[in-house]
Amino acid sequence: MTINLNPSDKALVPFVSVDNMMRLIHHVGIEPMLRGLADYIEADFKRWELFDKTPRVASHSAEGVIELMPTSDGEVYGFKYVNGHPKNTKDGLQTVTAFGLLADVGTGYPVLLSEMTMLTAMRTAATSGLVARYLAPRGADTMAMIGSGAQSEFQSLAMKAICGLKTVRLYDIDPAAVEKARRNLEGTGLNVVACKSAEESMEGAQIITTCTADKQYATILTDNMVGSGVHINAIGGDCPGKTELAPGVLHRSDIFVEYPPQTRIEGEIQQLAEDHPVTEMWEVMSGLKPGRSSDKQITLFDSVGFAIEDFSALRFVRDRIAGTDLYFDLDLLADPDDPRDLFGMLQRAKG
Amino acid sequence: MTINLNPSDKALVPFVSVDNMMRLIHHVGIEPMLRGLADYIEADFKRWELFDKTPRVASHSAEGVIELMPTSDGEVYGFKYVNGHPKNTKDGLQTVTAFGLLADVGTGYPVLLSEMTMLTAMRTAATSGLVARYLAPRGADTMAMIGSGAQSEFQSLAMKAICGLKTVRLYDIDPAAVEKARRNLEGTGLNVVACKSAEESMEGAQIITTCTADKQYATILTDNMVGSGVHINAIGGDCPGKTELAPGVLHRSDIFVEYPPQTRIEGEIQQLAEDHPVTEMWEVMSGLKPGRSSDKQITLFDSVGFAIEDFSALRFVRDRIAGTDLYFDLDLLADPDDPRDLFGMLQRAKG
Repeated sequence: MTINLNPSDKALVPFVSVDNMMRLIHHVGIEPMLRGLADYIEADFKRWELFDKTPRVASHSAEGVIELMPTSDGEVYGFKYVNGHPKNTKDGLQTVTAFGLLADVGTGYPVLLSEMTMLTAMRTAATSGLVARYLAPRGADTMAMIGSGAQSEFQSLAMKAICGLKTVRLYDIDPAAVEKARRNLEGTGLNVVACKSAEESMEGAQIITTCTADKQYATILTDNMVGSGVHINAIGGDCPGKTELAPGVLHRSDIFVEYPPQTRIEGEIQQLAEDHPVTEMWEVMSGLKPGRSSDKQITLFDSVGFAIEDFSALRFVRDRIAGTDLYFDLDLLADPDDPRDLFGMLQRAKG
Repeated sequence: MTINLNPSDKALVPFVSVDNMMRLIHHVGIEPMLRGLADYIEADFKRWELFDKTPRVASHSAEGVIELMPTSDGEVYGFKYVNGHPKNTKDGLQTVTAFGLLADVGTGYPVLLSEMTMLTAMRTAATSGLVARYLAPRGADTMAMIGSGAQSEFQSLAMKAICGLKTVRLYDIDPAAVEKARRNLEGTGLNVVACKSAEESMEGAQIITTCTADKQYATILTDNMVGSGVHINAIGGDCPGKTELAPGVLHRSDIFVEYPPQTRIEGEIQQLAEDHPVTEMWEVMSGLKPGRSSDKQITLFDSVGFAIEDFSALRFVRDRIAGTDLYFDLDLLADPDDPRDLFGMLQRAKG
């Protein structure tokens, strides 16, 4: 099977199911795929100014949020559907599920539909690893991983694959979650340490990743917990009213973000003044602004996830499934022989 | 096959392909389905104030536009992906293709994915028929149908099914398109008259529908072509820079719209002052404002298509496919037994 873009094939859209996404990840390898995703994301961050950028379109309810995240580089258009429902886990459902699409800007025809629950976990971790490669102290090899939810193992492995992490120190308020993550990371080559407190997890760590899901634990890192010379990778403060860091930590840090108009609404910096200085990661990756500038500096990546990262991840998937059996074609688009004859196509289907 | 919303089934999303949509339309019957869609749209217009409403999110390029149209009634969320590329027909592609989704607001989990190229044609026609039932002159039985593109036959049949239309008078600048539409409407019970000019098509017509695709033909109706006492159903003026009616026609008409913030950007009224008075159709359907108030009045439905109509159409499809074989389940959502154990699900898939 190959992806053929001849007009006669455009009625069919290649679809990557959850099952095929997992097969793709194992086909490429988890760590090589995390590195590959980081390469695609870095390439797109370096051509940042080409993209149509808009804050995500959110539909909020009492239970959570449903968002559409569109972007375009002028040739390819992409969007992701993603929900965030912290209470879902109580009913045995995912907090976050997602799917995404790429389309040809020239025709408007979709060219890829893909699950993105797995892929979002992979791209979020790849982005964290990529950013840490620019911002973490030289030689950083130990990470405190606070929160052992669905993102935890992906974060740990991305730091290993992309930054050379050797030791991860796990903490979660739920010991069963820590045990789940410890067990999952067995045999990956990481030295895994289960910790009984956030403070314990941070001993000797040059990288601190915060990734908790529930709005009610609003201060994961207090000011006195954070020493100098570390890199904070703050994943979980990602919607209005949901933050994980004490304001004091923010004030002592140099803050790096994806897209300021979105991060100021959704990220840790919603706690700060609207004009608090931040640096955009695309500027660091393009060499326009410095990343880490001293050993004593606290760098903070206030990560909320941006549409371009999903676009990069979908590009990676599209490129990697070509010539494989890791997708099937969906009959998603009506494509009559004569485009003006949609009704005739419908009539002929009756026979 | 039934749609089961038990948690264990939520990883699978019912999908209606183009083929199954055409089977559904014939299963229900084209005219009964147009009436059914009109009923669902009317029911949603009557509870208009419940909905989250936002102008569509558009990504414009030199060749066309790709849009996302989200809405929610607080319990169900829906969105449509739709493109508009007038030049596509030259390459044998559809000007407009679309697909859509419904999701549960409480969990954020999608509950229906459907093709919407066919369905959009059906809902656009059903909306026109529904609005004409409120605005067309009493006893209107003849329509001028200007433009014989993909929407033409659907518009004609919707006016028959919903308003009792008996005669349609077809005109297009391309005689082959007129012939296509005439042939397709044979045997439907409509009296079909092929005309050689827009003026000829309007002889004796109480309803005038304009539905042309190309931006270059910007004045389909001039002021001296339109007499009093008609209903104009203006479909084709539906994006910035694309209009079909002379300003004089607009100034003589009482104008009815779906959602003013969107219509003022995309509809015929983009030619008028920002505060030009318009009436919202939901107010007419709810009995809050009058529709047609005199025999001499020119009523104009400045139709651009709104997200709630797609929402209604998707609701109709979801209700009608239950218990049928007109869909299949897509493996779109990763749903591990333990929602925090996404990585474990990935690892277990390796074996």
